[in-house]
Amino acid sequence: MRQRNVKNKKEIIENSKYFIPNPSDYYGCWNKVFKNNNPIYIEIGMGKGKFIIENALKYPNINFIGIEKFDSILALALKKIPDGIDNLKMIRLDAINIQEVFNKEIDKIYLNFSDPWPKKRHEKRRLTSLVFLKKYDDVFKNDKKIEMKTDNKYLFCYSIKSFNNYGYYIDYLTFDLHNEENILNITTEYEEKFTKLNNPIYKITVSKCKK
Amino acid sequence: MRQRNVKNKKEIIENSKYFIPNPSDYYGCWNKVFKNNNPIYIEIGMGKGKFIIENALKYPNINFIGIEKFDSILALALKKIPDGIDNLKMIRLDAINIQEVFNKEIDKIYLNFSDPWPKKRHEKRRLTSLVFLKKYDDVFKNDKKIEMKTDNKYLFCYSIKSFNNYGYYIDYLTFDLHNEENILNITTEYEEKFTKLNNPIYKITVSKCKK
Repeated sequence: MRQRNVKNKKEIIENSKYFIPNPSDYYGCWNKVFKNNNPIYIEIGMGKGKFIIENALKYPNINFIGIEKFDSILALALKKIPDGIDNLKMIRLDAINIQEVFNKEIDKIYLNFSDPWPKKRHEKRRLTSLVFLKKYDDVFKNDKKIEMKTDNKYLFCYSIKSFNNYGYYIDYLTFDLHNEENILNITTEYEEKFTKLNNPIYKITVSKCKK
Repeated sequence: MRQRNVKNKKEIIENSKYFIPNPSDYYGCWNKVFKNNNPIYIEIGMGKGKFIIENALKYPNINFIGIEKFDSILALALKKIPDGIDNLKMIRLDAINIQEVFNKEIDKIYLNFSDPWPKKRHEKRRLTSLVFLKKYDDVFKNDKKIEMKTDNKYLFCYSIKSFNNYGYYIDYLTFDLHNEENILNITTEYEEKFTKLNNPIYKITVSKCKK
């Protein structure tokens, strides 16, 4: 995501009660952060937070953690959270280090409009590359579930193949989410923008039983 | 494929040395038809035959069988075959009956621009539905290989999910075949037409080890 500088970003972040400053302190015990044993869903690269905040409001019996690596964007997301939400936290993290923060405790991963890293030499950086799928194995509690949305057909095509080759089962697949009937869809900021431009939104939901 | 009536179609078909009138006679012994043990590739719904004829000319050490259910189209394909090709035969068959014609002797199936059967109630008629994938199991010799091309994104999306859910491994996947680099591609008549209209061509190649 293109970043604009956000004034007082450090202050916004440090003063937010939704921000967990040292997330690896809760490795293996995120249920203590939320003070319950509800399922935990994470969004890697949450951007400005619309998607995960709306999910947290809609599904109070699920705990949500938004992950973002850039301070400016994280500050914008934290500012947007209304008061009094108990089932939402946000952390600053580069997904490459996700195994240091979560240990067999996540129920679902959302990947929304991730960086496509179009160059072949950057393939490993894509959040659906083999490198990341292996990391996610250590993070998931029981069955693995990943939901991905993107407007980038190359990343989408790559991800389908990557999920398939890693043994994931495709539960849902569409090449044009916004023209599907009867969908329950919470949009991201990007998604709103691209949909206004009539760009199709691709979505895939995959799962895999934990061995 | 929309059919125009072809004059003398019966005569063309019956007089062609490339046409095998009673294909179920060769159930389990198609190698005798070709008089060798080379691999056998079939195209289900070959249309006017451009794809399979060009394949037969390019790969003399592979045997090809073109399958078509409509006489008018079959006659057009048969008329198009140049003289002196030993590795190509054509048959009249509705794919629903494919298990009556081949028995563990096919190495690859091509599905090019198959009828998308867009209505949900016609799903079973799609050549990549579970109904057909099960039939193909009886037809394949060793490893199962299917190559599919289409311009229909709904059929493509459906087929990806169907292949995945049936345990096929995706070897190759593109949403825009004609803009890929370094491809070796033999086109069909349909493909030529759609490409001129700048419609993207989708392609998937899948495989599965025979248990």
